[in-house]
Amino acid sequence: MQTKDFFIDRMAIVGVGLIGGSLSLALKQAGVVGEVVGIGRGRANLEKALELGVVDTVTQDLAAGVAGADLVFLATPILALGEVTRQMMPHLKPGAILTDGGSVKQAVIDAIEPQLRADVQFVPGHPIAGTENSGAEAAFATLYQQRRCILTPTRKSSSQALQQVRRMWEIAGSEVVVMEVDKHDRVLAAISHLPHMVAYALVNAVGAYDRYNENILEYSAGGFRDFTRIASSDPTMWRDIALTNREALIEMMDQFVTFFSELKQDVATGDGDRLFEFFRRSKQSRDEIL
Amino acid sequence: MQTKDFFIDRMAIVGVGLIGGSLSLALKQAGVVGEVVGIGRGRANLEKALELGVVDTVTQDLAAGVAGADLVFLATPILALGEVTRQMMPHLKPGAILTDGGSVKQAVIDAIEPQLRADVQFVPGHPIAGTENSGAEAAFATLYQQRRCILTPTRKSSSQALQQVRRMWEIAGSEVVVMEVDKHDRVLAAISHLPHMVAYALVNAVGAYDRYNENILEYSAGGFRDFTRIASSDPTMWRDIALTNREALIEMMDQFVTFFSELKQDVATGDGDRLFEFFRRSKQSRDEIL
Repeated sequence: MQTKDFFIDRMAIVGVGLIGGSLSLALKQAGVVGEVVGIGRGRANLEKALELGVVDTVTQDLAAGVAGADLVFLATPILALGEVTRQMMPHLKPGAILTDGGSVKQAVIDAIEPQLRADVQFVPGHPIAGTENSGAEAAFATLYQQRRCILTPTRKSSSQALQQVRRMWEIAGSEVVVMEVDKHDRVLAAISHLPHMVAYALVNAVGAYDRYNENILEYSAGGFRDFTRIASSDPTMWRDIALTNREALIEMMDQFVTFFSELKQDVATGDGDRLFEFFRRSKQSRDEIL
Repeated sequence: MQTKDFFIDRMAIVGVGLIGGSLSLALKQAGVVGEVVGIGRGRANLEKALELGVVDTVTQDLAAGVAGADLVFLATPILALGEVTRQMMPHLKPGAILTDGGSVKQAVIDAIEPQLRADVQFVPGHPIAGTENSGAEAAFATLYQQRRCILTPTRKSSSQALQQVRRMWEIAGSEVVVMEVDKHDRVLAAISHLPHMVAYALVNAVGAYDRYNENILEYSAGGFRDFTRIASSDPTMWRDIALTNREALIEMMDQFVTFFSELKQDVATGDGDRLFEFFRRSKQSRDEIL
């Protein structure tokens, strides 16, 4: 990756957790950023971010934090973005580029774009990466390597701003895909939001099993451990995703129920041929994408 | 692990795949087995097992393979066990111990125990270990290390035979738990069989999503990859599990539907507090077992 044509003098990151902190670390490691200011509400997390070198300076003052920033990365839960944008807007430097890492894009655009000053650019983005851990301690420089990052520029996004944000994610190690907003929200409902809902429901269903006087989760091995890991992601983040991508998510939850009901019917009737075919088809889907 | 009081002169393994092959490799590595005979139907897999040193000799002839064996490990799909047992029974050595690795225990006991000779011991077992791969090539010596192995002895199982099988799994690296048959089948329905059904249904539901002219599984990352891995396990094995643990599995599938429906309702109505609580509870369940 050639980086000498790309340098951010001053960058502000609002929300210094896994997503924001890891981007900071990746860009610092690549040597393409001057100073990174970490902005957040929790003092303890900011101090941890500073101590770990995730960012260079920290502040709880949004206005002061974004002042003079060439690029501002918003990495708060989705439902906080509207208010954060409202508060920071008057303090942004003319020409500043605003981008985000929210998992739902239409809701983020609706919250931010009406508030945009004419001399500020906004490029909505979504790095498809994460772990079940949260907070500045969870951040690491290689989180975005070999991952996809989807950008969903609006009609207002300049091609120059889009190019800057694209380069930033490429330097962080990601393959950038530009996509329509609606497609992003529907594809993500299918491959990310639905699976998380399924994992949360599964862990709660099994955790509530009380036939025996012990926590049967302790017997879990292999596959189920993966479910519990997925279902231990940040509740606030997932609440916001479920609330803001409702229509697409309900469509996928219905689609899942259709398939699960078919499978349950085949188990109930003991139809071995249909069960084999159902399992074989799933294995084939996977083998095709590997 | 002290092993000098344990040695199997001749062992037969029926079904030299991931489960059977890995047990052979673990016991050979520990030096507690003389000769291991691999028995199977597929010539190519047996030759691969021999070539890789998973077993010492191979045969497609069940009668010849089990002749003289002190311990026979059955690692075929569950529904094949009855017929395999019927065919091998006249050829077993007096005093031989029979054990298995089937994921459902009542069905295995029902298939095997009525056919047992008085001078042959049967100890039903289930190592809680596996990967999504199958065949002799998938076998590895450390599969059972730090895993649990559940034994469900019947009233007919002698304590001496139980002790032998227990030692065998301990030497392979597992923690052995002795459990009632019914409890095993219900606990496994919850922590293993249900999660697999959920993963299969999810991968098929997402794989069938056809709104876009491309395979959206290619966008999948993180969590969803785990689901596709789980849902690529051997279809024959899972068909047999679904067919033989039907009652407990249907009970758990119903329990899952209850929780998934509750979650879907909260998404549909946009109840943020209930969503947060649902996700938080799941995370807590997981944190408690780590």
